[in-house]
Amino acid sequence: MTFDPATLVYNDAGLIPVIAQDDATNEILMMAWMNAEAVARTLQTGHVTYWSRSRRAFWIKGESSGNRQELVELRVDCDRDCLLVRVRQTGPACHTNRRSCFYTAVRDGAEVELMAPVAN
Amino acid sequence: MTFDPATLVYNDAGLIPVIAQDDATNEILMMAWMNAEAVARTLQTGHVTYWSRSRRAFWIKGESSGNRQELVELRVDCDRDCLLVRVRQTGPACHTNRRSCFYTAVRDGAEVELMAPVAN
Repeated sequence: MTFDPATLVYNDAGLIPVIAQDDATNEILMMAWMNAEAVARTLQTGHVTYWSRSRRAFWIKGESSGNRQELVELRVDCDRDCLLVRVRQTGPACHTNRRSCFYTAVRDGAEVELMAPVAN
Repeated sequence: MTFDPATLVYNDAGLIPVIAQDDATNEILMMAWMNAEAVARTLQTGHVTYWSRSRRAFWIKGESSGNRQELVELRVDCDRDCLLVRVRQTGPACHTNRRSCFYTAVRDGAEVELMAPVAN
């Protein structure tokens, strides 16, 4: 079946959540949002392209920082309202310069930092 | 720092997206939503508890199907508006009886099914 981004289920703002997972390590790197055009651009270009809700603009991941995400595979969930992108990540994925945005764990009721920013 | 679910960033409906990842295999199983009370219950009970948007009720994963998710660790992302739960999953996580909800890949513009339902 041919894939059409219009068949996905978007929220009231026209967006769908996207989980980015490192294709080499299976680590979850981040979660962000795409609209239908961002999904299409990601597939066309191979550069993972989100929709920035704060800037209200397309956001080619790593375009300014150099920490790009190259698409390995896009996956759709069962009810078509969430996407998974498996990626080749250059440098840290998080804007805090950490490998992953999920660097805080809750252990015994307290927040614990799991990883430090990458040295430049 | 003590963790308080009230410090998370919820959307207009009072919900935060939650990614469930298998702690043993690192496979991404599903994405669903929690409100602050569901986050608290998950931590208190160790049974991953979502908020069902369709049923407008707490949803203790696997309570009816037996396919429970036991919490191994909860993680918070950098801007505190997304959670990751690392879990021990009993049986398939997807309501279609597949191991993961992300069983459809887009390859060469076409949808490809990656895994079949688990036999009962």
